[in-house]
Amino acid sequence: MLMTDLIQKKKNGEPLTRRELSFLVRGVTDGSIPDYQLSALCMAILFKGMKDREIADLTDEMAHSGDMIDLSEFGTLSVDKHSTGGVGDKTTLILAPLVAACGAKVAKMSGRGLGHTGGTVDKLESIPGYRTELPEEDFRRIAREVGVCVIGQSGELAPADKKLYALRDVTGTVDSIPLIVSSIMSKKLAAGAHSIVLDVTVGSGAFMKTVPDAVELAQKMVTIGRACGRNMSALITDMSEPLGFAIGNAMEVQEALAVLRGEEIEDLKEVCLALAGEMLSLSLQMTPEEGRKLAEETLASGAAYKKMKQWVAAQGGDERYIREPERFPAAAYSREILAKEEGYLAAMDTEAIGRAACQLGAGRKTKADVIDMAAGIRLCKKLGDHVEKGDVLAVLYTEREETLYEAVRLYKQALTFSPDPVKKPPLVHRIIR
Amino acid sequence: MLMTDLIQKKKNGEPLTRRELSFLVRGVTDGSIPDYQLSALCMAILFKGMKDREIADLTDEMAHSGDMIDLSEFGTLSVDKHSTGGVGDKTTLILAPLVAACGAKVAKMSGRGLGHTGGTVDKLESIPGYRTELPEEDFRRIAREVGVCVIGQSGELAPADKKLYALRDVTGTVDSIPLIVSSIMSKKLAAGAHSIVLDVTVGSGAFMKTVPDAVELAQKMVTIGRACGRNMSALITDMSEPLGFAIGNAMEVQEALAVLRGEEIEDLKEVCLALAGEMLSLSLQMTPEEGRKLAEETLASGAAYKKMKQWVAAQGGDERYIREPERFPAAAYSREILAKEEGYLAAMDTEAIGRAACQLGAGRKTKADVIDMAAGIRLCKKLGDHVEKGDVLAVLYTEREETLYEAVRLYKQALTFSPDPVKKPPLVHRIIR
Repeated sequence: MLMTDLIQKKKNGEPLTRRELSFLVRGVTDGSIPDYQLSALCMAILFKGMKDREIADLTDEMAHSGDMIDLSEFGTLSVDKHSTGGVGDKTTLILAPLVAACGAKVAKMSGRGLGHTGGTVDKLESIPGYRTELPEEDFRRIAREVGVCVIGQSGELAPADKKLYALRDVTGTVDSIPLIVSSIMSKKLAAGAHSIVLDVTVGSGAFMKTVPDAVELAQKMVTIGRACGRNMSALITDMSEPLGFAIGNAMEVQEALAVLRGEEIEDLKEVCLALAGEMLSLSLQMTPEEGRKLAEETLASGAAYKKMKQWVAAQGGDERYIREPERFPAAAYSREILAKEEGYLAAMDTEAIGRAACQLGAGRKTKADVIDMAAGIRLCKKLGDHVEKGDVLAVLYTEREETLYEAVRLYKQALTFSPDPVKKPPLVHRIIR
Repeated sequence: MLMTDLIQKKKNGEPLTRRELSFLVRGVTDGSIPDYQLSALCMAILFKGMKDREIADLTDEMAHSGDMIDLSEFGTLSVDKHSTGGVGDKTTLILAPLVAACGAKVAKMSGRGLGHTGGTVDKLESIPGYRTELPEEDFRRIAREVGVCVIGQSGELAPADKKLYALRDVTGTVDSIPLIVSSIMSKKLAAGAHSIVLDVTVGSGAFMKTVPDAVELAQKMVTIGRACGRNMSALITDMSEPLGFAIGNAMEVQEALAVLRGEEIEDLKEVCLALAGEMLSLSLQMTPEEGRKLAEETLASGAAYKKMKQWVAAQGGDERYIREPERFPAAAYSREILAKEEGYLAAMDTEAIGRAACQLGAGRKTKADVIDMAAGIRLCKKLGDHVEKGDVLAVLYTEREETLYEAVRLYKQALTFSPDPVKKPPLVHRIIR
């Protein structure tokens, strides 16, 4: 088989066979296909697309290019959630103990943050002692005994995707639906869960900027996940503004704990309950409405909060930080941003706000950067809020005072005010089942 | 400037600026742009095309990526001809001395053969002593004194094109009109001639399979050549069958000499006179009709043949082979192909016939192959000819007897017969001025 023939076929809009896609993925994994041929093929795929059967085959081959986590002992109970990325998105920290407390099994591998989006593994590492690397047997044992275990993604999970993504990133071939779908879904398949709920974000802080684009991506991922034998559903959730009020690793853990302890943080809680309803529906075979009701009751009863403590302790984390979240150290420097005039907060460039948090030390610009766990942003005004001149719009926290100037500038530029009241977008735009 | 930005722009169908194309060609030449980004850009160009201004800029930048041959001493008299490749195409061997004998200056760099097409430099090397490598001062001196000098193409001519073409060849990005045009024209610009006549072949032995495709390519090359300051015209010539009756290096030199000595080889002579008319029109400022008439007279007078002898001698070739073409050594083995039934020769797969000649030793499958100068094919029947059962269709010549079986098979398969008379295609389909 010749790689040039695969490129020619795809260039002419012809579908690639399973055998050809298998040859491709093996060549990516063992390095026998040169990068210049791979990037030419990716560009041809970007222009000519792929049929669902091709995407499913590519996804399955990439999933099998490395380790496949075996969660078969949990039968239909294992459930995973994947977000396409957001700012202030701490839903995993709430959902994992919540659905585990309901009886589902969450044995999950999460990523690290890069650029304007945060990563669950970074957030968990703000809890002293929490181990994000565990041997596979411990990973499964904790999931078995506690119901929830969340670790970092191993480099041996879908290594073909890792190589291909790095190449796409520097060859202008990221924004191809078939390649995005196969990239995300290959890792999810390899991670082993029987059911997968996708949280496809849309808006100024998301990869997808419009609802139709997000729906197209979500539908394709659901189709491909099902073709590969998994239970699937997807929510299109809003990312026109950060989720909740906290951005930054320790601050987001504190906010998640607040929700688990019953505090009303409306948008964050609502998105979590919607996602939990889907996750429980798929894993416990109930209707999404029944799943949501069960999640509401389990949250209200304190069982989810109790599960959080068990989970963190099982992974070596200092449980005192969960019981007393004020233990998380505060940042050395803070700066309030004040409103210059009266009005309504009409739009937020959420990606820019994510970049501001990154600037403060809460995220990584490059993979080599080190995160300051205490750095971040506390939002005081959100979309639709009325603002008086002099009101505090947000508070910025950092360990490095010199970063404040640029972060303040970014945050201020990210806001748009209107003299008239504005309507907030819905939290959940669409559900795809 | 970032290569990823260039890829993104082209992917979105935006034109690249002169500065961006200059950055690109510099990066190709010095190797600072990685191949995987170049191949992705080439694929994006293949899908999104380029405006004439972009192609002209790219062509000019690639021409200037290496040596620029200075033929300014010849003013408007210098003229070049370029064929997009054919089988049995020995027109340069006739045209070069013919137009030189008319007063034009042919200081020309020619290529070697690869695959099913032959190369003028290989053919000239069948003449013992003929030097295809000369210092630039000798190259210009011979053109000045004799009017014609033909050498091999130096590696320092348009090195950016050389690198880019090698990459396109293995990434499925050869068949892009902007990339073909800039590749051909950059070498032609660097080779220095003031006027350039393009011979764009069409048919079963040509890169372009249909007249509209050939016209599109020819018009684009004429446009770009003019935008870069050269006199241009193009002929669309037929390659539904090999040109003349001889395929193979020494055999093609012998056939060219026959035409120069007045022998009537209809299709070959006609194409040469049409091309000569264009070349003389551009270089001597006359109408193409006047140019053709001058070429006819010069050929008939024996002046072109005399010029051939002077030219070969000036480049060190053994003039006796020109005076007595029977001196060229015959091949060790030959095989006649006989007609199995009566009919009309209706179609020839000319590319397959070229591959058969290559198989016999007349060409190279890879750049490393060595050519047998005596190997080749003599056609006895051409398109439209009536054939009786037992007639000799062709004679195959080789130094390696074991190659005959496959070559005979290829040649037989390449022919299609019809019980009814068939019409031959025209020799010149279109002229683009």
